[in-house]
Amino acid sequence: MSQSPATSLQDIVGHAKEYGFVFPSSEIYDGLQAVYDYGQNGVELKNNLKAVWWKAMTQLNDNIVGIDASIFMHPLTWKASGHVDGFSDPMIDNKDSKKRYRADQLLEAKAEQYEADGQPEKAQALLAEMGRLLSAENLEAVRELIIAENIKCAVSGTANWTEVRQFNLMFSTQVGSVAEDSSLIYLRPETAQGIFVNFLNVQKSGRMKVPFGIAQIGKAFRNEIVARQFTFRMREFEQMEMQFFIRPGTEMDWYNKWKEARMKFHVAIGLPAESLKFHDHEKLAHYANAAVDIEYKFPFGFREMEGIHSRTDFDLRNHQELSKKKLQYFDADLDENGKPYGNYIPYVVETSVGADRLFLATFCNAYTKETVGEGDSEKERTYLKLHPALAPFKVAVLPLVKKDGLAEKAQAITNSLKSAFRTTYDDGAAIGKRYTRQDLIGTPFCVVVDYQTMEDDTVTIRHRDSMKQERVAISALKEKIGYEVSIERILEAI
Amino acid sequence: MSQSPATSLQDIVGHAKEYGFVFPSSEIYDGLQAVYDYGQNGVELKNNLKAVWWKAMTQLNDNIVGIDASIFMHPLTWKASGHVDGFSDPMIDNKDSKKRYRADQLLEAKAEQYEADGQPEKAQALLAEMGRLLSAENLEAVRELIIAENIKCAVSGTANWTEVRQFNLMFSTQVGSVAEDSSLIYLRPETAQGIFVNFLNVQKSGRMKVPFGIAQIGKAFRNEIVARQFTFRMREFEQMEMQFFIRPGTEMDWYNKWKEARMKFHVAIGLPAESLKFHDHEKLAHYANAAVDIEYKFPFGFREMEGIHSRTDFDLRNHQELSKKKLQYFDADLDENGKPYGNYIPYVVETSVGADRLFLATFCNAYTKETVGEGDSEKERTYLKLHPALAPFKVAVLPLVKKDGLAEKAQAITNSLKSAFRTTYDDGAAIGKRYTRQDLIGTPFCVVVDYQTMEDDTVTIRHRDSMKQERVAISALKEKIGYEVSIERILEAI
Repeated sequence: MSQSPATSLQDIVGHAKEYGFVFPSSEIYDGLQAVYDYGQNGVELKNNLKAVWWKAMTQLNDNIVGIDASIFMHPLTWKASGHVDGFSDPMIDNKDSKKRYRADQLLEAKAEQYEADGQPEKAQALLAEMGRLLSAENLEAVRELIIAENIKCAVSGTANWTEVRQFNLMFSTQVGSVAEDSSLIYLRPETAQGIFVNFLNVQKSGRMKVPFGIAQIGKAFRNEIVARQFTFRMREFEQMEMQFFIRPGTEMDWYNKWKEARMKFHVAIGLPAESLKFHDHEKLAHYANAAVDIEYKFPFGFREMEGIHSRTDFDLRNHQELSKKKLQYFDADLDENGKPYGNYIPYVVETSVGADRLFLATFCNAYTKETVGEGDSEKERTYLKLHPALAPFKVAVLPLVKKDGLAEKAQAITNSLKSAFRTTYDDGAAIGKRYTRQDLIGTPFCVVVDYQTMEDDTVTIRHRDSMKQERVAISALKEKIGYEVSIERILEAI
Repeated sequence: MSQSPATSLQDIVGHAKEYGFVFPSSEIYDGLQAVYDYGQNGVELKNNLKAVWWKAMTQLNDNIVGIDASIFMHPLTWKASGHVDGFSDPMIDNKDSKKRYRADQLLEAKAEQYEADGQPEKAQALLAEMGRLLSAENLEAVRELIIAENIKCAVSGTANWTEVRQFNLMFSTQVGSVAEDSSLIYLRPETAQGIFVNFLNVQKSGRMKVPFGIAQIGKAFRNEIVARQFTFRMREFEQMEMQFFIRPGTEMDWYNKWKEARMKFHVAIGLPAESLKFHDHEKLAHYANAAVDIEYKFPFGFREMEGIHSRTDFDLRNHQELSKKKLQYFDADLDENGKPYGNYIPYVVETSVGADRLFLATFCNAYTKETVGEGDSEKERTYLKLHPALAPFKVAVLPLVKKDGLAEKAQAITNSLKSAFRTTYDDGAAIGKRYTRQDLIGTPFCVVVDYQTMEDDTVTIRHRDSMKQERVAISALKEKIGYEVSIERILEAI
């Protein structure tokens, strides 16, 4: 039995569509760019991942609670957070082709070319110069740099460029029906701000004591100019964020603790340690004093799946200034001089994972092709090696044949299990083909009802990964499988 | 012990905010009209309701699967569904006050006034006339009727009205960065269409056979002119919809089956039968040939919580026409003449419940005030009588006192339970006060660690509703409580 190592993104996209995990959005209308829908198996896998994250945050930790803030928020929220003024990409158009590019990506591509041509110093110098100009918001000089580097449009082949402009990535819409009081609001570009504006409400109504965290799962929206790599970068996506509120000065301790805790989480749900790595940010965002990504080895390389950021008091302080509402905490604990720490704006360490990226990583990691058998009976099989607690179906109950009461017996077993965990019934083909169907969607256990079952009320459990079979009593099924497929089992490993 | 029957919406709103169930959105910026956020206890209750509905659909029924379609969809979707042309309210402005009204609501208010004045015939006649004019889209005549009825603006007191115009309730936004290929898209006003456009993808990849259903939970958005009654009518809300695809001609059977099944669901999660009723639609929507609401008795009266609609093949047929993709099903079953039913566009029976309305109904129903004790010790207590499987916390572990190792023992018990279900620890006040805290958020069980615990490893379980106490072994806690608080227990009752 040998496993083939290289999985292409194309394999993943194809399998996801064919077996009901991910469909292009509005496909009958030829799709909507950078938007995808989760199919009948994808939604179960994604929901299971979300449930594990949610419970790992709000159930395992006595000092973390959740919220569910709305997507619509007061527009001043995005003024305070810096998104209205700063959440934009530098764009440039080619006047001949009318094609639009991100100015920074044009220059990065040029640097990669220098790199490939064996001129790494030129590449480094170009990137440094670009970084300097963008930081200074000197967009005219960015344009001059593009022209000086002789960068041409891939479509028209010309260097006939417009000026460089900043393009805000937030989607906006009008709310309210009356012209006078209707207002421009944004679709949130991140879920974090929903936590910050609710900080005091949660702290007070929940009697929370620093350090404590607020967790949230929800949709966010970004009008990405270049959206690509399947569900990795979408215009509508889902975040799982936790903001941990702490005493100023303790942030590096908590930052390091959460780095380790989040890495442990990913290993507990079944991602191999060797496919994960930390990547420290060289360039810190305006709100952060330390930041690291947890990257997963996708088919297109190591890419960010989660970010852990020490955000200082940037957000709460800005909201306090703009709203004129005190967003402070009174810390009654005693400092080294025996006095209470008193009032302060808490610092924040954030963990932010893309639910769609975690889904994609889990799916890519589970996708397995291997050669089984030998000689003439050698063949390739494909299956999804998902953690049982994450699989869309936990059990498939299969009568060996439809006749002689085996189908009815199998259906009765299905009914006895389905209020405990997701169980499917299949009598539609040869048994081998039915195993394959379940392998392809990652069902960890097939329960087979055969003639012996009719005599002694035992069944065979066939295991997805090892393909081994064992004989067990029907009466033992629920308990035996129940624990294996429970989220509790993952939680105990975190 | 007596329970006070009348709960006002004000009580509900106050309790929801004070105990972390529902906060006004962006409250530090003075809120955003008709948008709310779920707090730390609200999100758990809502998630539990969503999980029960989801499992009741996709786990108990072998022929129902879920999907999670995106909020953004191709704009032609809303052309096919009729929303671009028909999803609007008739609006009229008063020229003096600049205040905007829904024309139909002005006329309905007038009819109510006739009713109150003992002139029910005039009320009936007015409503009938209004219905006729709106159906005929004769908006000029609607305006004339408002003037003829001498209806005045409540602010200016004048009848100086503009013309009546249709105002579309969909929110729109621009997607894409390039002027030439950017397009106007809508925030979905309902989740149902996400199911219809994915019908074939799910049917084929899931090898589904008619009759089968597709379930979905997700956000929808409507630019309501008059949004009110707390979370009952919001501009951003969440739907739980299931579209059941059937053979044409069988719709009334399925419509009746789903009516009963959905009513049974609401009773199983703890809503009393006497607070629920069916309400048949007199006026059918353009897509329906039968429709009924399940209404719940909110503090502001019986109102729609769920709709069950026989939608015929309206949606699939329109999508087929507009997309030019065949949205048909080949039915190999044999008809009475022994021939396969063959190809057809399936009919649809839909069940659509508002997650926020189900939350509000559950919350209102759970909110209980009762007088306990007698004479001098008589007092009022408030608690949330939530089904244990729906409660935000399942168990609170309370040491009777903090000293003599009781706190450590209680914390050890908390840790032993929390990977199985949501458990909190509290040592912060007198025991009675701590019971009250848990009552107010609906925790069904308090586990008390006392001096006897230190001797024989038993604890007291205090029951929320009866306030009765029982002594059990620590080793029995997990199993004893585990089943009581499991969603499985509700599923078995459905």
